Amino acid sequence: MTDKLYHPDTICAIATPTGGAIGIVRISGSKSFDIVNRLFQRDITKAAPNTLHHGDFLSLEGEVIDDVVVSLYRAPHSYTGEDAIEISCHGSAYILHQINVTLIQAGCRQAGPGEFTRRAYLNGKLDLSQAEAVADIILASSKAAHDIAISQLKGYFSKQLSALRDDLLKMNSLLELELDFSDHEELEFADRTELYQLAGKIKQQIEKLAGSFKSGEAIKKGIPVAIVGKTNVGKSTLLNQLLHEDKAIVTNIHGTTRDVIEDTTEIHGITYRFIDTAGIRATDDEVEKQGIIRTYQKIDEAQLVLWIIDAEPAKDEYDDMCRRTADKTLLIVHNKSDLGAMPQVFDTPVIEISAKYGKGIQALTEEIYHASQLPEVTQESVLVTSSRHYDALCRANESITRVITGMDNQLSNDLLSEDLRICLDDLADITGGAITPQETLNNIFAHFCIGK
Amino acid sequence: MTDKLYHPDTICAIATPTGGAIGIVRISGSKSFDIVNRLFQRDITKAAPNTLHHGDFLSLEGEVIDDVVVSLYRAPHSYTGEDAIEISCHGSAYILHQINVTLIQAGCRQAGPGEFTRRAYLNGKLDLSQAEAVADIILASSKAAHDIAISQLKGYFSKQLSALRDDLLKMNSLLELELDFSDHEELEFADRTELYQLAGKIKQQIEKLAGSFKSGEAIKKGIPVAIVGKTNVGKSTLLNQLLHEDKAIVTNIHGTTRDVIEDTTEIHGITYRFIDTAGIRATDDEVEKQGIIRTYQKIDEAQLVLWIIDAEPAKDEYDDMCRRTADKTLLIVHNKSDLGAMPQVFDTPVIEISAKYGKGIQALTEEIYHASQLPEVTQESVLVTSSRHYDALCRANESITRVITGMDNQLSNDLLSEDLRICLDDLADITGGAITPQETLNNIFAHFCIGK
Repeated sequence: MTDKLYHPDTICAIATPTGGAIGIVRISGSKSFDIVNRLFQRDITKAAPNTLHHGDFLSLEGEVIDDVVVSLYRAPHSYTGEDAIEISCHGSAYILHQINVTLIQAGCRQAGPGEFTRRAYLNGKLDLSQAEAVADIILASSKAAHDIAISQLKGYFSKQLSALRDDLLKMNSLLELELDFSDHEELEFADRTELYQLAGKIKQQIEKLAGSFKSGEAIKKGIPVAIVGKTNVGKSTLLNQLLHEDKAIVTNIHGTTRDVIEDTTEIHGITYRFIDTAGIRATDDEVEKQGIIRTYQKIDEAQLVLWIIDAEPAKDEYDDMCRRTADKTLLIVHNKSDLGAMPQVFDTPVIEISAKYGKGIQALTEEIYHASQLPEVTQESVLVTSSRHYDALCRANESITRVITGMDNQLSNDLLSEDLRICLDDLADITGGAITPQETLNNIFAHFCIGK
Repeated sequence: MTDKLYHPDTICAIATPTGGAIGIVRISGSKSFDIVNRLFQRDITKAAPNTLHHGDFLSLEGEVIDDVVVSLYRAPHSYTGEDAIEISCHGSAYILHQINVTLIQAGCRQAGPGEFTRRAYLNGKLDLSQAEAVADIILASSKAAHDIAISQLKGYFSKQLSALRDDLLKMNSLLELELDFSDHEELEFADRTELYQLAGKIKQQIEKLAGSFKSGEAIKKGIPVAIVGKTNVGKSTLLNQLLHEDKAIVTNIHGTTRDVIEDTTEIHGITYRFIDTAGIRATDDEVEKQGIIRTYQKIDEAQLVLWIIDAEPAKDEYDDMCRRTADKTLLIVHNKSDLGAMPQVFDTPVIEISAKYGKGIQALTEEIYHASQLPEVTQESVLVTSSRHYDALCRANESITRVITGMDNQLSNDLLSEDLRICLDDLADITGGAITPQETLNNIFAHFCIGK
């Protein structure tokens, strides 16, 4: 949707947090130059685009608000695709606020969250999945999450969707060709090898993308790892070692950790969210009981479970832990390896560490990384990280499956075409189709910060 | 001091707080273009100064860190007076950190606090008092504090100092002329009217500047106003009215406010720091006693005292309050004016309010503003706001006073000239003389933020 009449006003917003050395107020829209020209010491109306100009920014009363540098962009060569100006000033809250207010007094409208990026999308500078990558880039705190977002912004995901779209259109053409033949020559059983091959390829691609969501989401949000075990086996000491800092209170009194402690660390560019839990034991202490209930909840939420033991577990304990972690990866870790021989755990491999002395921690982090079975991420990796995209891919998968079963059941080409069109629409929802509803856009951009 | 050999390295720093829509990394020094050129997608070595360039910023390994815009400045037309580049990127901590680290890997040095402004000073772009104004501009949170800082940055203070310097040099020339005359013509009693006039004018100017420090400091830091009175006269209710919000806990139990509550509001562009205090009464409660001791301390620190009463005070109470506020402005405020007639307070004017019903608050704020007797501040006002400047002015005043008493006592012209030179040096300390010591510069710039 590139309806430029939809947003004729000129918007402004403070685009940096306040209190730094430099602050920026951003303006976009057809009146950007007229408005700033009234407030800036120098005449910029005839200035070349992509140039910088130093001078005083004035209030409507002609008082100096600050000594600023303005950056000038002319449509369509700007972030939004519109005429745009950035005002670089001293970063105080007072000055940023005064400049923003003055721009509003002079005719700008305060921009809503993500409105600059929304305009970039509406003006065709970015597709919707690229626009969403902008928010992901700002949120990314690990190398892998950052690289996936960069890949998405650079359009690698969009390119795969575009290839899928080409295959779907090709299928549709083939179906139409069959219709033409069947009209004229009454060919009842067309050779559908190519159609089946194309549909199979499309389905496989869609499933591969949808299947990447689990890893993509884990990389974006961080992989939850629960650290569980009996009281006093050294779970908190291990957590401290993993986080390289003293986060958990470590004592040798049983049941010290009653709250669930959570923090993140990065292993090979991936964020892991380590969750220290209350020790599991029979107890009458009501507070401690609550902690143990929460421990079991945390096991449910985790993707990896580190079960810390300091002696051979009983068969029923082992069976219980295996049952609780059936759909997860369980790593059994023998702590205090300096104090005793490695226990036998029913033929399951055990990782030896001494959390107190920092022994085996490096090897354990490598085990954790390998156990999480993540794909290697590069700046061209396509991994679905948005539940909105995952949802659209699942719907697209249903549509293409209906096409295939429709062909099996010799449905009419009209009905097959209908499902192909639905599949195309499902995929178009990801990059932003001709008729992306306002609510969808509102939902997407509501999560952006002001000024982006 | 403009010794360019002193800082041959190229510095970089993150110049915005992290987590916003836009972030900026700043670079200054002779290698700016070479270093950025290795990391930026496009060749900028031949780009025109004051231009903007969009492209990928890469790590040393060639991976994309972000889609950025670089702003190019060529010496001497930059903030620092050196070649300089600003990299405008997405504002995440991850990206800003990666760009900064990559620049350091490529040969930049991490800038210290205020180092960009320090270079601007060393390269003669700003004098020292203007450089100090940069920090004040970033800290200013009221219109008046902002306007004084802008005036100082624009050089209005420097101009007055420059005029003083011209007068001092003129005095020195006149003294040297006298020496020439006395050598050749043995003229013993020169006409010193002009010398006395000049010295008097200089002394008056210096005293005027030094005398502005009290107001300047109050405007910069905010004017402390203590709200005192017996328990339960409505001090906290009044504070809430003055701050337009519910900061203090208001109950009708005597002695509710035991801590000293402080917050600021702006009246006519001036920041006032209102200090709610514990009620004054005889008490056995040890905690409350401590609060009352702190109340008296706060009266000592305040410039204005609002004494809230709800009935006529006893003579000894009145005398005690007058004694404690002898060197301050005391405003007597009758609260709960809705409940009773205005009390007589020994012929002292009383301001009538009802804090509970918000009556008389506007008039009270006007009284507070007028009672603080501040000069009207414009963007050309020169008010001394720095204790370093005040100290230099006091020393300069001593020097010029020695010159005057020296003339009275017919000291030799050599000795008078010596004191004139000391006075010139005292004033030169403010704007930064030929030999500003490193420690002075270190002290000044240590208070700046990184990236400024």
